[in-house]
Amino acid sequence: MVITIGREFGSGGRELGRLLAEELGIEYYDKEIITEIAKRTALSEQYVKQVVEKNPHELFPISVAHTFSYIDTQSLQLTRMIFMEQERVLKQMAQASDCVIVGRCADYILQDFKPFKIFVYADMDSKVERCLKRNEKADNLPRKKLIRKIKAVDKNRARYYNYYTGKKWGDILNYDICINTSNADLKAIVPHLAKMVKE
Amino acid sequence: MVITIGREFGSGGRELGRLLAEELGIEYYDKEIITEIAKRTALSEQYVKQVVEKNPHELFPISVAHTFSYIDTQSLQLTRMIFMEQERVLKQMAQASDCVIVGRCADYILQDFKPFKIFVYADMDSKVERCLKRNEKADNLPRKKLIRKIKAVDKNRARYYNYYTGKKWGDILNYDICINTSNADLKAIVPHLAKMVKE
Repeated sequence: MVITIGREFGSGGRELGRLLAEELGIEYYDKEIITEIAKRTALSEQYVKQVVEKNPHELFPISVAHTFSYIDTQSLQLTRMIFMEQERVLKQMAQASDCVIVGRCADYILQDFKPFKIFVYADMDSKVERCLKRNEKADNLPRKKLIRKIKAVDKNRARYYNYYTGKKWGDILNYDICINTSNADLKAIVPHLAKMVKE
Repeated sequence: MVITIGREFGSGGRELGRLLAEELGIEYYDKEIITEIAKRTALSEQYVKQVVEKNPHELFPISVAHTFSYIDTQSLQLTRMIFMEQERVLKQMAQASDCVIVGRCADYILQDFKPFKIFVYADMDSKVERCLKRNEKADNLPRKKLIRKIKAVDKNRARYYNYYTGKKWGDILNYDICINTSNADLKAIVPHLAKMVKE
């Protein structure tokens, strides 16, 4: 059983994924994926993270002319290596045991495993509130700037997903179920969601 | 408890609604709404159905000039009466007892009741298959024409919803949960869904 979770920033997708993995007694992978890629490629976690969260158009410029310097060619090779490793890591994780995987286009990369695909989203107010509560990327930002940050993270996620999968991030047809967490009590709904996934 | 269901044509939204109402032991309203409006307005069910499924722009033309004939004015009045009655019927149904209501912009009309809002969808292949199975609107149509019909029904639903609610039909933010029925066993998942709704 492989469960993939796509999520809007601040929607609680990671929390839902972690709870779901606990409920089902299966593995949970999120930041572990970056750590594993870093280990295998002997690159720093920070570098790997930066690459996989970058705008893909920056990574693979269409105009080859720009990449003709030695440095650019080298960084392009590193980027390609990281993406190949990401695919390998995800497939090995899915093969090794039942698991929940958050982000990383896992729904697309692992399509042969016929994963159960979840998308987690929420309205802006509740995303802002969640960010402020956990203080992630909030850093005492005024509300307006925080909203801009939330939108920017999701814009990058969408670009990344659309580029690598050829599909549209957040398009309901890519997922088996989409859950609005704005008014949801995650701890209360996860046991029932777990049973739905098993059907 | 009020549960509203928006659905793509052929996605099994009505079946899911009926099963959910059975599971929860509450009322289920779908075609009954049309019947009730017809009874109250002393119009035929067919006429009411035709009005509420029409392109809203035809119903309330922006250019008043076109409606200056006696017949147009009269039909406009009937249309308004039907819509007012629809709102009244839905609110009375929701007030009378817990219920599941399919379609009719119920999520919007009944927003004061804080309904649990479900959207049901599926990929085109499984919608075609479901239509052929139940033979509704399929009528031995070739596949291509059937797809065109399915799209046309949904286009009208979207227009109707967008016009009356000012929101976008199928936009995930309008719903608490969106369920892809393409690979789902409705009978198996409904008991778990029912528990999720109760949380």
